[in-house]
Amino acid sequence: MSPPQEHGRGGAPAEAPLTPEDTPAPSHAERARTLAASRGVGTLATVAQDPAGFPYGSFVTFAMLGPDPVFLVSQMAAHTKHLRADPRASLLVAEDSEADPLANGRVTLVGPCEPVDEPAEARETFLAAHPGAAYYVDFTDFGFYRLDVQAVRYIGGYGRMSWVDVDAWRGASPDPLAPHASGILEHMNADHADALVAYARAFTRATTAQASVMTGVDRYGFEMSVETERGPRPARIAFDAPIETPTDARKALVALVKKARASLA
Amino acid sequence: MSPPQEHGRGGAPAEAPLTPEDTPAPSHAERARTLAASRGVGTLATVAQDPAGFPYGSFVTFAMLGPDPVFLVSQMAAHTKHLRADPRASLLVAEDSEADPLANGRVTLVGPCEPVDEPAEARETFLAAHPGAAYYVDFTDFGFYRLDVQAVRYIGGYGRMSWVDVDAWRGASPDPLAPHASGILEHMNADHADALVAYARAFTRATTAQASVMTGVDRYGFEMSVETERGPRPARIAFDAPIETPTDARKALVALVKKARASLA
Repeated sequence: MSPPQEHGRGGAPAEAPLTPEDTPAPSHAERARTLAASRGVGTLATVAQDPAGFPYGSFVTFAMLGPDPVFLVSQMAAHTKHLRADPRASLLVAEDSEADPLANGRVTLVGPCEPVDEPAEARETFLAAHPGAAYYVDFTDFGFYRLDVQAVRYIGGYGRMSWVDVDAWRGASPDPLAPHASGILEHMNADHADALVAYARAFTRATTAQASVMTGVDRYGFEMSVETERGPRPARIAFDAPIETPTDARKALVALVKKARASLA
Repeated sequence: MSPPQEHGRGGAPAEAPLTPEDTPAPSHAERARTLAASRGVGTLATVAQDPAGFPYGSFVTFAMLGPDPVFLVSQMAAHTKHLRADPRASLLVAEDSEADPLANGRVTLVGPCEPVDEPAEARETFLAAHPGAAYYVDFTDFGFYRLDVQAVRYIGGYGRMSWVDVDAWRGASPDPLAPHASGILEHMNADHADALVAYARAFTRATTAQASVMTGVDRYGFEMSVETERGPRPARIAFDAPIETPTDARKALVALVKKARASLA
């Protein structure tokens, strides 16, 4: 478990990264948009009528329509009754991981949640994310609601948290590599251990690294856990320019390994 | 996906069970207590100060102290700031399953959430459920909060939902077999296919069943999916008396298979 850096009487320092802190990386707005786009379930919080005024959490499916989540809800559901009386709401979306739960990323989207007047786009987006909903989408008591995001709280894990500026949230986009990241990591770690060591030796302070594992990849670069004499240390390497596709990623990773080997030769 | 029976213009009827509807089974209060006791993470909903009055969901770890959830929270966390100003809260706990998310069970516990004055018991219970929290439990800014459950909403899946009476919630106990259920199912389905067919033929309307899979077990009995000529059908068989332990379950299942075989002979 990573220590909560902000808290109480301290705790162990985090592992010092092997690369500069200002290596280009996704913003909190981008990380939060990526997380929201990657999940289809969350907790909708509404204001209960009974007991009156209590915040009430319910499990929901959702899809992102640009920066705002949309929901297909039954008029009979408690949360829908609540929203009809008071549109104030939030949606919590949490990463789904087997590891230490408090190390997972999560984002809370706060704003009024109201019926969608022209639901064609919401319907298309929602059914693409939840094909099984085709079964009940036309039931007369179901309808689309949209949460108009007005505040965004992002928590990336222990000690990494911020209120995200709403304009930044609206202007950001989910990482285009996110749906492909696990495949890229698997491929690199299975088949290109030599390239990962070359990256570590050429581009990080671990110039004698013997092993390195890719732990993340996004449009701006990738992250590794590098084995050093003092144990594993995180490192982040930027691509020369932001990328969009798995093909771009392959080209960028090949270009970087050539550059690494040239500098080590 | 099972159809939502309550909704709109209908949909396919649910599979008719092969056994009487009044076969002894856990109450909603017991199912909800079992679910809450089986999970260590959920969504705490609190009342935000900014934007004022909005319900705010945050990801939390918790442990059940009898009927009430307890939390180890940082004074710096948004939800703790909210609770200091307004104790109204709820906790949503959802089953963790890979299947159709809306078919999963979930429970919302509603009530005021306030600091625990004498935290020894909360501490012990919480650390037993979350040993990793030992790392920060003594940080000066952390403390225990308890949600005093005053309303309980249980949803067992499509169309199975109710407000659970709070006295019933407080009087119920989590199913003692729940931690062992998956092991029992695995064992019965792997090694006792013949017994499962005997149960089906002797105790359900599927007197010519050729195959049967155990799908659930609890203190009052067990459930099967029985292959019939018209496809799989659910069945529930009661034990002669409620049981407490895996050893009890083995004895009860052996007694029932003897009874089944005697009646089929």
